[in-house]
Amino acid sequence: MSTPATFEDAVTALPKSGTEPQMEVGVYLLHRLEELGVKSFFGVPGDFNLGFLDLVEDYPGIDWVGTCNELNAAYAADGYARIKPGSVGAVLTTYGVGELSAINGIAGAYAEIVPVVHVAGFPSLTDQKNKPLLHHTLGDGRYNAYAQAADLFACSQTILNNADTAAAEIDRVLSDCVIQSRPVYIALPTDVAYIKISSERLKVPLPRLPIPNNAEGESAVIEEVVKLIEEAEGDVAVLIDAAAVRYNVAEEVKDFVEKSGFAVYASPMGKSVISEHYAKYGGLYIGLLTRPEIKNKIEDAKLILSIGAVKSDLNTGNFTAKLDISRTIELHHATTKIRHAEYPGIGMKHLLPKLTSALSSSSSIKSSTLSVSVPKWTYPIPQDPSSGDIISQAWLWPRIGEFLRPKDVVVAETGTSAFGVLDIPFPDGAVFVSQILWGSIGWTVGSTLGAAMAARERGLGRTILFIGDGSLQLTVQELSTMLREGLKPIVFVLNNNGYTIERAIRGERRKYNDVHNWDYTHLLKALGDIDGTRSKSYAVNTKAELNTLLNNETFAAADLMQVVEMKMEKFDTPYVLKYSNKLVGV
Amino acid sequence: MSTPATFEDAVTALPKSGTEPQMEVGVYLLHRLEELGVKSFFGVPGDFNLGFLDLVEDYPGIDWVGTCNELNAAYAADGYARIKPGSVGAVLTTYGVGELSAINGIAGAYAEIVPVVHVAGFPSLTDQKNKPLLHHTLGDGRYNAYAQAADLFACSQTILNNADTAAAEIDRVLSDCVIQSRPVYIALPTDVAYIKISSERLKVPLPRLPIPNNAEGESAVIEEVVKLIEEAEGDVAVLIDAAAVRYNVAEEVKDFVEKSGFAVYASPMGKSVISEHYAKYGGLYIGLLTRPEIKNKIEDAKLILSIGAVKSDLNTGNFTAKLDISRTIELHHATTKIRHAEYPGIGMKHLLPKLTSALSSSSSIKSSTLSVSVPKWTYPIPQDPSSGDIISQAWLWPRIGEFLRPKDVVVAETGTSAFGVLDIPFPDGAVFVSQILWGSIGWTVGSTLGAAMAARERGLGRTILFIGDGSLQLTVQELSTMLREGLKPIVFVLNNNGYTIERAIRGERRKYNDVHNWDYTHLLKALGDIDGTRSKSYAVNTKAELNTLLNNETFAAADLMQVVEMKMEKFDTPYVLKYSNKLVGV
Repeated sequence: MSTPATFEDAVTALPKSGTEPQMEVGVYLLHRLEELGVKSFFGVPGDFNLGFLDLVEDYPGIDWVGTCNELNAAYAADGYARIKPGSVGAVLTTYGVGELSAINGIAGAYAEIVPVVHVAGFPSLTDQKNKPLLHHTLGDGRYNAYAQAADLFACSQTILNNADTAAAEIDRVLSDCVIQSRPVYIALPTDVAYIKISSERLKVPLPRLPIPNNAEGESAVIEEVVKLIEEAEGDVAVLIDAAAVRYNVAEEVKDFVEKSGFAVYASPMGKSVISEHYAKYGGLYIGLLTRPEIKNKIEDAKLILSIGAVKSDLNTGNFTAKLDISRTIELHHATTKIRHAEYPGIGMKHLLPKLTSALSSSSSIKSSTLSVSVPKWTYPIPQDPSSGDIISQAWLWPRIGEFLRPKDVVVAETGTSAFGVLDIPFPDGAVFVSQILWGSIGWTVGSTLGAAMAARERGLGRTILFIGDGSLQLTVQELSTMLREGLKPIVFVLNNNGYTIERAIRGERRKYNDVHNWDYTHLLKALGDIDGTRSKSYAVNTKAELNTLLNNETFAAADLMQVVEMKMEKFDTPYVLKYSNKLVGV
Repeated sequence: MSTPATFEDAVTALPKSGTEPQMEVGVYLLHRLEELGVKSFFGVPGDFNLGFLDLVEDYPGIDWVGTCNELNAAYAADGYARIKPGSVGAVLTTYGVGELSAINGIAGAYAEIVPVVHVAGFPSLTDQKNKPLLHHTLGDGRYNAYAQAADLFACSQTILNNADTAAAEIDRVLSDCVIQSRPVYIALPTDVAYIKISSERLKVPLPRLPIPNNAEGESAVIEEVVKLIEEAEGDVAVLIDAAAVRYNVAEEVKDFVEKSGFAVYASPMGKSVISEHYAKYGGLYIGLLTRPEIKNKIEDAKLILSIGAVKSDLNTGNFTAKLDISRTIELHHATTKIRHAEYPGIGMKHLLPKLTSALSSSSSIKSSTLSVSVPKWTYPIPQDPSSGDIISQAWLWPRIGEFLRPKDVVVAETGTSAFGVLDIPFPDGAVFVSQILWGSIGWTVGSTLGAAMAARERGLGRTILFIGDGSLQLTVQELSTMLREGLKPIVFVLNNNGYTIERAIRGERRKYNDVHNWDYTHLLKALGDIDGTRSKSYAVNTKAELNTLLNNETFAAADLMQVVEMKMEKFDTPYVLKYSNKLVGV
């Protein structure tokens, strides 16, 4: 018997016993989501999804995590998926009012290559036919308008209007999600969720890998790459970027760099994809913002092997990351570039293990790389007397560097937090979570919820959020959900009286960059820790106070949720941000 | 000299002096917004709108009201526009991340016929041409994707890429907004905002009225309507709905009903368009949910004159409002229906004053209507012993009825609040604000911000919000903006431990309908009233406690912001909701 060539071939080849148990379309969807790694399902109830929610609540393998609002739910699904490479995140909303509130979160996942499944409650088949003037409609009969909007920010979508094809449609769209690592949209009509269908397709696991590369093309690529590597005599700089982890090739990359012994660097969006504690890891490459000890090591390497590059402005030092094409190989999800040649369809997921294998049989390479040194990336705490007692950006981030532990999940909000955290060399296995391309402020609060859930599932370390006051105010309510779920993040609030990142760009002293000052140490009480037993909140005004807190072992153990308000100076920014703005002439 | 026939004719007829002052495109836009009644401009800064924000902050006639997030800003612009009929609301967001967060608020304004101008920062002309991989883009070069999404929920849009046509485009789109009373979208490139253009068009005021009705058609309609009214011998029921106020014909309606003396009723969405204190006003018509004293008076009237009907499910008692077409006249924005005949293009704004005038010359009508009585709508507080001390829905709403004062602005969240407030006969000039078609929970918090700003501008009374715990959690941060702006709303929080409206529909005891319990009396401290001088918060557990508070004159004077947490029973709902669900078989 031959192995079926494709997923649908395998489905067709299933013996038609006719005795497979029937299940509701909604339950079928839940089985497939669980198969793709979903244990926590985020969202908000609404009358177009309540029926499906009964099925979710009764489904043993998946927990419903109700959030305060839909945007935060989408953010949470995004953060969740980032911490579980190879899995997907999932968010459930109701028709119109719910799904549209989530759309910025979904678009962000699209931009940042994060696999998020958006299930939206949808009117029944009868209502779709008769188009009554229901609540949550636009009042003009355009029942599909929200699906049209969703389609702009999804790699695949389906409206499950036909029970006969529902299982195949679910399979198609979910496979697209996990393989293309982009959001998908599933509109689930209230009645279809309950129609019983055959479960037989569940016997065939969903395809999760891209289709194999063309064998001849792949061989040609490997031959050419090996030749260039041999010619480089060990002077190879591997540069890791976001798409490496988003397309779930981090393990393949790790194997490749460890076996080859090449020097390794990362872009900001690729930070922590390879452990920053790894001996041959040298730090971040950000064009002109790169620290001088490594800049030439990368740009002057005989060969640069770029894996999963996302060449956005803030990921490249405002487009100052200029690598010599004639010495560069780029591995991407669905293409390979070798110097000036492109090999469409040769993707890195299948290519990398073969490349690793080919190199290991080339005895000259490993020995040649042994001699290549990588300057150790350190970040000592400066004396910084100019800022006095005030917690300065220059002092804060290296101090936080000493606080971090292996396997911590560090979420950094767009703004001074992300710029600051970038500078910290992470301990082994610590994970960096940020949104450097999409840059939607407030994203980290929802994202921290999802990341902390996933980190708990995976047994990772503490989840630590750095966020400014302006950003926190967008999405603050989701701290409540973390409390309810018994999560124990440490939330550092940089209270610098407004949108400091915007001040650095324009309107330094404009009123529009001010935000109302809150009492951040009272937030958790108001948001649900009524008797004060589930959390602790701290306000620190000076370096000494923060030092004391960070050195406190009970605090550092993070045995309950904690918020730390840090009073900071409103015009102070990390040096990278100052320099970055100079590059664009701000 | 003849009067120019159209707005553009008038512009063309302007003397070309060439000496009009030049101004930035952004300033031109601000002049036109001010002309349309915008004094408060809501939104969130972002690097694609900071340049324009400098112009906003320096513009004397408009105040910038920075909100915590963009969805709330859109909600605020919506609430603002509702309180200032004939004006527009305005919201400013940044490219991608900002505008998409607002889109649910904009779609809601579209559905509910509210004129909201959405200005979105947009990349510069150079960036649009070269399409660099900027932050806030999708990473795939689709720079116009957000404008495509916006177009689904706007009656008109423009991307201001051409300074030569920018003024005309602004004029076109803003006129569409105010005339069609739907959202419009203006994408403002960062550089174009600063290009200087002639201000000469500002000499011609924007058209704000629909084009005149065809004279012959209008005469035919008036003749027919007057004939039917005369035949009805005073037994005419006028039924007022949302579109009457949204298309700014409330004054014309008031004049019509006062001069004619006809009995007047309203739909839920038309509540308070005509003062509920008016002698000939009989209350709400909601199909089978209508109180019995008036149901037959409406349905059996010899003639029913419906003005601005929006026949949505929740506005019609789940489609049980069935009026005999052969006895019904419907006036709409752009059409008139007389029994079974339709007169397209004959709109109510121009028709109503002529109809009023035609009737006043028919001496028989006013005298005949004098004899038509309208049963007074009262809502006595019931004994309600079954609920004991607990604040019950059956007791709460009539008690609140006694608390309301003339000109209060009463905002009622979708859920038990809206159903409850509907039942209260309002004092003279009190305004009802709710979102009965769109029904996006959380909407009222942003909407209250906008409504309270507009109420202050107009010198109306107190702004009072009724909202459940579940809904408040979606958008809670905007309470902070009310504090900052010195607004003094009274916020009644119905704390009934979850989504009671959803429980009434499905999943009464499901966990997904639970929400985390907050300490609502600590919210305002956390959200910015740090020293407790700007607000007061109260928790009331019993009818007696609420009675005491409502009777307290200091409380009732609403001289500072106040939050009242009312502990209520989780399964208790207003009778209208219970009955409404029965109608759809829930």
